[in-house]
Amino acid sequence: MLAVHIARGRVKVIDIPQPKRRTGYALIRLLCGGICNTDIELLRGYYSFSGIPGHEFVGEVIEAGDPALMGRRVVGEINLACGKCEWCRRGLGRHCPRRTVLGIVRHPGAFREIIDLPETNLHVVPSRVPTEHAVFVEPVAAACEILDQVRIPKDERVAVLGDGKLGLLIAQVLAAHGASVIHFGKHPEKLRISKAAGIATSMRPRGGFGYVIEATGTPEGLRQAVAMTRPRGVVIVKSTVHGEVSLDTAPVVVNEITLVGSRCGRFEPALKLMASGKLRLDSMITARFPLADAPRAFEKAVAPGAIKVLLTTSSS
Amino acid sequence: MLAVHIARGRVKVIDIPQPKRRTGYALIRLLCGGICNTDIELLRGYYSFSGIPGHEFVGEVIEAGDPALMGRRVVGEINLACGKCEWCRRGLGRHCPRRTVLGIVRHPGAFREIIDLPETNLHVVPSRVPTEHAVFVEPVAAACEILDQVRIPKDERVAVLGDGKLGLLIAQVLAAHGASVIHFGKHPEKLRISKAAGIATSMRPRGGFGYVIEATGTPEGLRQAVAMTRPRGVVIVKSTVHGEVSLDTAPVVVNEITLVGSRCGRFEPALKLMASGKLRLDSMITARFPLADAPRAFEKAVAPGAIKVLLTTSSS
Repeated sequence: MLAVHIARGRVKVIDIPQPKRRTGYALIRLLCGGICNTDIELLRGYYSFSGIPGHEFVGEVIEAGDPALMGRRVVGEINLACGKCEWCRRGLGRHCPRRTVLGIVRHPGAFREIIDLPETNLHVVPSRVPTEHAVFVEPVAAACEILDQVRIPKDERVAVLGDGKLGLLIAQVLAAHGASVIHFGKHPEKLRISKAAGIATSMRPRGGFGYVIEATGTPEGLRQAVAMTRPRGVVIVKSTVHGEVSLDTAPVVVNEITLVGSRCGRFEPALKLMASGKLRLDSMITARFPLADAPRAFEKAVAPGAIKVLLTTSSS
Repeated sequence: MLAVHIARGRVKVIDIPQPKRRTGYALIRLLCGGICNTDIELLRGYYSFSGIPGHEFVGEVIEAGDPALMGRRVVGEINLACGKCEWCRRGLGRHCPRRTVLGIVRHPGAFREIIDLPETNLHVVPSRVPTEHAVFVEPVAAACEILDQVRIPKDERVAVLGDGKLGLLIAQVLAAHGASVIHFGKHPEKLRISKAAGIATSMRPRGGFGYVIEATGTPEGLRQAVAMTRPRGVVIVKSTVHGEVSLDTAPVVVNEITLVGSRCGRFEPALKLMASGKLRLDSMITARFPLADAPRAFEKAVAPGAIKVLLTTSSS
């Protein structure tokens, strides 16, 4: 079967044997994959990665222990937790210290024709949600995670910084939640997507916000986010960037600002939100390429102006 | 009257006219002043300061509009708020954007024989609290502020990093609150003060803490604090350091760590805690100098091993 392979900054399509189903695992035929910033970072050397990337996917279960999963359209949680440690017992398997991570840490990714994942990682996609929307579940869940971590008062103005994929989704998710969002970015053509969703946008950062979401993906983003936050305000830090970020901590201390690191989230609220039809996801799809054309798809994904590039299969 | 003056890295004692009382203000005769790290930073150029330093003091009211204050022993809040803005109305005058700050920002400090401060800034010192303890009210309040900002579960182990004045006070305040504190530092003779107060101490940092208080006063402290925090844990950032701090934000995001900037606190809980007799403050006093010997007092305060150096007056 075909699989995408990354090593030393190059993307190839290789032929590998189909995985055999292990107990507790399902085999899933890939329907659609999404290239994420993390995949691009992996290509650039983050985590010294070499192997099969991909963790945004929608597939169809073709083998499973649980008959209720057979033939169903599913998405999958990316953390493969041990299921036994204190974190797993508290339902926070995504912080399990022994976890592997689909397409990132010691588990082959989703950009292959047949994927193997624990059945407990799978969520059935509601029929109302098109496959090309469901592929956004992981970043939508990462956006929803903010609402799990901090309680944003309804009348509070929220600044979202960064108009990449994650920034666009966060702006939409928070607006759908009822927050009064102002979306700050640098790319008029990307901010237009938020504007079309009824969200205020701006290219000129300004201060005084009680809540600022840092999703620029740049080392300067955190400094800017702190500067835009009013005393006792909260910065939610979404960007993972290469290496060290330099920050003047004095305003953080003097203004008693809280910085909250925020990563992946639960899929349930994300699927529910997508099923509500409140998110505009079509406008975020830049291009579609067959899995066999993955090198071209990655080229497109790193090109200026790209938002979400999808990988499709003959089953899509 | 005598006053301490700092300019271009030098400490002098100068003779200045006694302040005249303005409406709403009290005049206070200095009994005892404490040299704080901030004073030392001011001497080193922080805030481009030149003027009269000092914000830790105990004095006796000699003129006031409110007769209840006359002759009383008082300490004073250091932020002189405008009293009118949204922050002031919410009781958070210490974040008032138009505030001046005693001995730090546009208000002459407390290291002078007669101090002028708004009466609303003053707190009468309970008779049980000796003057040389009351002079610690500002850093004790800064330590108590942590408990105002985060709720530390009773059974949670808390790491306090840094064995300077503030670190020592924080360790004692959190321990008095019932937290299970481990105090990490680099100076056996300072950690001995915590040990004598019944607090566990260690010179070898280790990880896995749900709550870590960063009070090292060094640029490396924040990185270390993050490394010692378990996923979903909280770092309380107390250190204000010169310039920028470099930090790898990836573990903050991946482990969803919360960083809480924390500055000054309310004096009421601090005075109450000092009146309870639960803090051991005598062992933190390194030396006492008359106000007229301020240059020697500052020399002592910056010397290795110094904790709190006090300035005294003939009224002390």
